[in-house]
Amino acid sequence: MSMSETLRTLLDGPYPETRERVRWWLSQPGNEPVDDLPMEEHRERVLAWVRELSSEGDTAMGYPVEYGGKGSPGRSVTSFETLAMGDLSLLVKCGVQFGLFGGAILHLGTERHHERYLRDVATMELPGCFAMTETGHGSNVQALETTATYDPETQEFVVHTPDDDARKDYIGNAARDGRMAVVFAQLIAGGEERGVHALLVPIRDEDGTPCDGVRLEDCGAKLGLNGVDNGRIWFDHVRVPRENLLDKYAQVAEDGTYYSPIENPTKRFFTMIGTLIQGRISVSGASISATKVALTIAIRRALERRQFGPPGSDEEALLMDYRTHQRRLFPALAKTYALSFAQLRLIDQLHEVFTTEAEDRDRRELETLAAGVKSIATWHATETIQSCREACGGAGYLRANRFAALKADTDVFTTFEGDNTILLQLAAKNLLTDYKDEFGELDPLGMARFVAGQALELIAEKTALRKLVDGGDLLARDTQLDLFRWRYEHLLGGAARRLKRGIDDGRDPFSVLIDSQDHVVETARAWVDLVVLESFPSDPAVERLRSLFALHTIETHRGYYLEHGRISAGRSKAVIKAVNELCAELRPDARALVDAFGVPEAVLGDAKVVAESVPA
Amino acid sequence: MSMSETLRTLLDGPYPETRERVRWWLSQPGNEPVDDLPMEEHRERVLAWVRELSSEGDTAMGYPVEYGGKGSPGRSVTSFETLAMGDLSLLVKCGVQFGLFGGAILHLGTERHHERYLRDVATMELPGCFAMTETGHGSNVQALETTATYDPETQEFVVHTPDDDARKDYIGNAARDGRMAVVFAQLIAGGEERGVHALLVPIRDEDGTPCDGVRLEDCGAKLGLNGVDNGRIWFDHVRVPRENLLDKYAQVAEDGTYYSPIENPTKRFFTMIGTLIQGRISVSGASISATKVALTIAIRRALERRQFGPPGSDEEALLMDYRTHQRRLFPALAKTYALSFAQLRLIDQLHEVFTTEAEDRDRRELETLAAGVKSIATWHATETIQSCREACGGAGYLRANRFAALKADTDVFTTFEGDNTILLQLAAKNLLTDYKDEFGELDPLGMARFVAGQALELIAEKTALRKLVDGGDLLARDTQLDLFRWRYEHLLGGAARRLKRGIDDGRDPFSVLIDSQDHVVETARAWVDLVVLESFPSDPAVERLRSLFALHTIETHRGYYLEHGRISAGRSKAVIKAVNELCAELRPDARALVDAFGVPEAVLGDAKVVAESVPA
Repeated sequence: MSMSETLRTLLDGPYPETRERVRWWLSQPGNEPVDDLPMEEHRERVLAWVRELSSEGDTAMGYPVEYGGKGSPGRSVTSFETLAMGDLSLLVKCGVQFGLFGGAILHLGTERHHERYLRDVATMELPGCFAMTETGHGSNVQALETTATYDPETQEFVVHTPDDDARKDYIGNAARDGRMAVVFAQLIAGGEERGVHALLVPIRDEDGTPCDGVRLEDCGAKLGLNGVDNGRIWFDHVRVPRENLLDKYAQVAEDGTYYSPIENPTKRFFTMIGTLIQGRISVSGASISATKVALTIAIRRALERRQFGPPGSDEEALLMDYRTHQRRLFPALAKTYALSFAQLRLIDQLHEVFTTEAEDRDRRELETLAAGVKSIATWHATETIQSCREACGGAGYLRANRFAALKADTDVFTTFEGDNTILLQLAAKNLLTDYKDEFGELDPLGMARFVAGQALELIAEKTALRKLVDGGDLLARDTQLDLFRWRYEHLLGGAARRLKRGIDDGRDPFSVLIDSQDHVVETARAWVDLVVLESFPSDPAVERLRSLFALHTIETHRGYYLEHGRISAGRSKAVIKAVNELCAELRPDARALVDAFGVPEAVLGDAKVVAESVPA
Repeated sequence: MSMSETLRTLLDGPYPETRERVRWWLSQPGNEPVDDLPMEEHRERVLAWVRELSSEGDTAMGYPVEYGGKGSPGRSVTSFETLAMGDLSLLVKCGVQFGLFGGAILHLGTERHHERYLRDVATMELPGCFAMTETGHGSNVQALETTATYDPETQEFVVHTPDDDARKDYIGNAARDGRMAVVFAQLIAGGEERGVHALLVPIRDEDGTPCDGVRLEDCGAKLGLNGVDNGRIWFDHVRVPRENLLDKYAQVAEDGTYYSPIENPTKRFFTMIGTLIQGRISVSGASISATKVALTIAIRRALERRQFGPPGSDEEALLMDYRTHQRRLFPALAKTYALSFAQLRLIDQLHEVFTTEAEDRDRRELETLAAGVKSIATWHATETIQSCREACGGAGYLRANRFAALKADTDVFTTFEGDNTILLQLAAKNLLTDYKDEFGELDPLGMARFVAGQALELIAEKTALRKLVDGGDLLARDTQLDLFRWRYEHLLGGAARRLKRGIDDGRDPFSVLIDSQDHVVETARAWVDLVVLESFPSDPAVERLRSLFALHTIETHRGYYLEHGRISAGRSKAVIKAVNELCAELRPDARALVDAFGVPEAVLGDAKVVAESVPA
């Protein structure tokens, strides 16, 4: 096998034929990403693509076999993330319909919902919305204000938007195509508030006319993803039958009696939300795919474009031969490999959790991993796509070069399916409490209080057991892992001590939390770095990439290592030197390293004209 | 005076009435930035705006009084950069017409060119292009391939595009409006190649029909700035009269005899290019203005938007009260102040150099400062606008919020008027050679060889004279300056030694240069940081901002300080703590700090609806 084939096999993971099928689809004429279509035409095109894909069964892979699916969450995410090499509006429209809308019915509903709706969702017969976010509440979902009040007289729920802050906002499929919505609302039953629950509410009839009491508005043009029809929804005392409650985790009896197998309302809420984790993992994978497209374009160009060079020489030098250019692209390339391997691990764990009887702890670990990797992968996409655009200079600024769409469309990935900063805090809380916390997602006090209890001892114990080995070959996996692990554990211990001290001093827990917020977020970042490094396969083909990822990360954080005496000044300088050397060593393989991503020529925009004959 | 008035006075600098006039213009109905207009309509709108501005004399401030100008480069840049708070296509169209096209005629031409063209340029009677960049050569302008061959028979220059790589590309005003172009071409006179010179070439007649031998093509849609009609130009043996050569620095006699007062062709080239420095300074200022718009929107929103908070409390907490949010926005805010003050210094030096008999050394210093500040300011814009978008979450993703345009339009600022990485190398070379270098812009060997000579001793001398003072109040200006200066000088000395060692070892100079490229670029960055810090006025109103800029920069580079023993681990941690404390201290002034930017309400998009009543 050629180098790029070997790498491709590692990158493609357990479902290579699924990836190949999507690559094939993206390569068909007419399926290449569009740019600069007027918004309504773009929406039209995207809808047609979604229908085409759904008619071929590609969009139901995650659904149970009895509803036309393949019962494979792993395959479903794999297919989805590969599709992200193409038009990202198509991707997000699919995500909204099959992932969010269909996923909520699958995970929060029960058999009668599955039986009645899933087939129509998978075939796009029933286009739907995932109506969670409100104008006033995006991150703090527990504080949503839409209400669903049970009326035992008619055995209906009355869904209502109390004010404009509570309107559903940025909802995909809402402006144009959606006919039904999974609405998240404060459930009131038996006269009591029961917290946020989800229920199905029709929003348009078959002709597309809004249902009685439903007001719909188009969000209009967005920074990107303009092939997706995001909109706003208001409900004015809209009545839906009792069976429209997605009732896997809570039921309301005819007389309004409320029952849930999970007694603690916060735990119930986070259990429900936790089942929707696939969306977050899908965004993570999509951002990695988009990054691969950008890197393929920029590195191909750097292997073609010449500028300046030794005087007297006939030819100018290739951009790829300049260290500044290598520094700009290769560490990003190595991190993209790293994140790809972490994403494979994530897909694997997702598949495991959703196809077996998973423990609570497994679910929490998956949630933590997903939150962490999603944050780091989406920020990495934003940064890398930007660097790649700059590395292509003026040519990168033309629409024909795909950077316009890549930049604009991926931008929101750092925000949706969970704001990255909030997600890192969620991850940190799980780490600080060793997943034992009974409290919910980002309850700011849960963490501070819990840490004041048992967690600190546990962390101290863990770190004490580990023997610090200084020295060691910087290019050795174990040395790299030791350094990553040390950073994570040191940050974790520090954050725990800081929280505990604040609480012990009797300070207001909220201000204690605010005060250590940056420390806590950094802890989560360090943990993600560690997990990502661990995910590298032990294959000689990726050794240099692993070392470059590891040492560039250590270089970035060398202030911390030096500050805490973990590395010497000399060693710190050796790290910088090693990064430069690794860049130079990877240089001859540059083309093979991006070819291994398997980005179809059709999605490369103008870059596809860059000759295959480039020496590499 | 209120705090924001005091700050406004400091920020507005020596031409406050010029800034106020532009703010007034931007506030008039119909002058607010447009977004999402179809490309041709956007171009039409921008052209109308340019005509309006030019009819009021606002676009000629930098031209001599005798041609309807005010003879004030300082006022001209001030007006231009303030306009950057509005539609950036308008800004760039103005930059192309009055700055680049008109500026080339002004600085490279002589009286008869001024007399004949400048008035028509200033009134937009003669829309023109600055045709420098070619598809094959953007950064390496000396290697352009277009030729201008003098034919003594007819006393004409024959302008020709030898191949597609030599077509003029990304040229503003070329696709639609331009009637004439300043064309940069290899001059061939008296049978000899004379290097790159500029000459005037008509490209369209008054009806807009392309002239004989001129082929024009539209670059089409771009990532941003779609109100500017960028295009490509090919010349097929196009003949222009002898007097069309812009002949301030070189003349061609009737018989083809070539004469230039500057004998060294490289020096001649860089002298000519050096006169066009105003464009770079204008882009720097524009990027700072755009950053101010983004920060105003994001900070206003953070003072309005609540999410999460202490349980049991009636209200959630304001985003601005979270440390992660402060960390995201306040250091960027402080750096924006810092860059604004550096920009005032730049405008001042520009004005001085172009209105007095400046020494060569003054010009080189201005060139270095412009290259450095332009790079740092434009990267800062890209990063900060992105952070601000993310800080506004989903709302920031709607077109109505201006981030779409701010992101897309400013993106190319890091590339045009000099690629940032190349500019930093240019700055570094000037620093390494103490401006004594006779060689030109980024001649890669000039630097290595020269440094191998005298420069190293000079640097050694300089750094030896300085007494290192450790300790000292971190919040004191002198301590901060000492730390910045140390970093710069230490990097400079290191880079010089590295280059010298390579040359002394007899290695190929080009590979020596490549090998120290990252070190060299970092030297320039450190120097810019120092200059920017020095630019802070000694006014108590900006002390905290100065400290935040200084300490956040030191925090970012603490690895380097620790590595070289310049600060202790304890002091490094104290810097991090001080950054957090400064953020908290600036929190109550957040609103006043952005109000001081004086961004007109009309350019804030949806953010203008955020109430004035916000507590701040």
